[in-house]
Amino acid sequence: MELWYTENQTENVKFSMKVKEHIFTGQSDFQKIDIIDTYEFGRVLVIDGWTMVTEKDEFIYHEMITHVALGVNPNIKRALVIGGGDGGTVRELTSFKNIEEIHMVEIDPVVVEASIKYLPFTSSKLSDERVKVFYQDGLEYVKDKEDYYDIIIVDSTDPIGPGEGLFTESFYKDCFKALTKDGIMVNQCESPYYPNNAREMKRSYSKIKNIFPICEVYQYNMPTYASGHWLFGFASKKYHPLKDFKGFEFKEKLNYTKYYNEDIHRGAFALPNYVKNNLEK
Amino acid sequence: MELWYTENQTENVKFSMKVKEHIFTGQSDFQKIDIIDTYEFGRVLVIDGWTMVTEKDEFIYHEMITHVALGVNPNIKRALVIGGGDGGTVRELTSFKNIEEIHMVEIDPVVVEASIKYLPFTSSKLSDERVKVFYQDGLEYVKDKEDYYDIIIVDSTDPIGPGEGLFTESFYKDCFKALTKDGIMVNQCESPYYPNNAREMKRSYSKIKNIFPICEVYQYNMPTYASGHWLFGFASKKYHPLKDFKGFEFKEKLNYTKYYNEDIHRGAFALPNYVKNNLEK
Repeated sequence: MELWYTENQTENVKFSMKVKEHIFTGQSDFQKIDIIDTYEFGRVLVIDGWTMVTEKDEFIYHEMITHVALGVNPNIKRALVIGGGDGGTVRELTSFKNIEEIHMVEIDPVVVEASIKYLPFTSSKLSDERVKVFYQDGLEYVKDKEDYYDIIIVDSTDPIGPGEGLFTESFYKDCFKALTKDGIMVNQCESPYYPNNAREMKRSYSKIKNIFPICEVYQYNMPTYASGHWLFGFASKKYHPLKDFKGFEFKEKLNYTKYYNEDIHRGAFALPNYVKNNLEK
Repeated sequence: MELWYTENQTENVKFSMKVKEHIFTGQSDFQKIDIIDTYEFGRVLVIDGWTMVTEKDEFIYHEMITHVALGVNPNIKRALVIGGGDGGTVRELTSFKNIEEIHMVEIDPVVVEASIKYLPFTSSKLSDERVKVFYQDGLEYVKDKEDYYDIIIVDSTDPIGPGEGLFTESFYKDCFKALTKDGIMVNQCESPYYPNNAREMKRSYSKIKNIFPICEVYQYNMPTYASGHWLFGFASKKYHPLKDFKGFEFKEKLNYTKYYNEDIHRGAFALPNYVKNNLEK
């Protein structure tokens, strides 16, 4: 028997991976969680039928959601990750020795437990002594925080289901308030290619632009996400991602990463005309 | 009945598009040619089961295979396209008023005829008076050319079937000879992500590096090609793609393109560490 997992990327587009083994399935209070082992991509975390993380290319997503902001402000001490229950974003943050506190707020403990058990490649640093995990709705968590975090990383699913609130203006306002005076917010902001994703990209960008004085978008090549062309938002109170990026003094960092480097930092902000036009419309 | 076209991107990965209508099918002396109309991507040219061109995103491929070199040397007068029977690369070249001669050498007349009939969005400029089409093997065509073309664009299929010779060292040497003293060669050089593509990427790059004094690789996001992360080679006798790129004096050009712009030109050469390491290995 051949086993295939298919993601319906749109109504009219399917992406399928050949499966070695269906390792885990669970229904939490929030969503359906599956972990499969695949021939091409290694282990894969699937939530509500959408690919979240694959062993083969999660490094691209997790390096790009983290290192760009840390390249702009290497003095970040307190970091907050909202979502990101697989642990990959936290893993990248722990590679920065300056960071003193890493708080992860994940609404769904089942994602974290399954990741610890089956996805050690992303979850391995959740045990770092600087890391504290809160099982709570990120929306609620940030409400009463003020002037505390140097960075907030919104490592969310798509704006359907539990991730929906993380794409609202009131949430972005609370993040602004929770950040220190030179704080940076990085958020998962979808893709410019398929209409459904592009609509969310625009909505997210236009809301954040109303709140943060600096608001940019940068891209990365993520082969296992629909279209492969994905974006993060970079919003900041003080630092511009390019003007305030001085490049690296330490070669060490460049050897550690598999995707990110100084050129990628700059090149990631070079958006195609069709993306720029759509964002500004 | 639902009709789906599936590309087997690797043994273990499939990409499928929902089909409105199977418009054309033909077997030439060289390959199997199909044209379908799809819900998500409009019309699609498929050769031997591989997606070549889609109406939705062909602009990305064709702008990037053309405009980068023309950005570096806007004085190009004589252009040669090898392959590219759909006409998209020729279409982009005709947008440059300085160019006096555009020769297209395509081994397979069936591709050109089907494109003229069913893919007007790429083939429309094949009738430009500067364009001459030769139905011939590109390998043979360049053999006796010397110091003639300012640019050669190798717009080939993958190195399987008729495209195979276009990935050989002797062919690249003939291109070098056929180019003027400040000539540029741009070639389709596969993708870094799946092992089969990455192997061809490395082979192509290492051969060209032995022949041309300047040899670089640049990337573009091509959602309908496997992994979405694709590369072109930029090989040159004199011009460096970044050091000799002065940016644009004419805003006009930037308004015409949907993908390419000045930032994209620079950003496209920013390769991820895993790609650089693989190329240099």
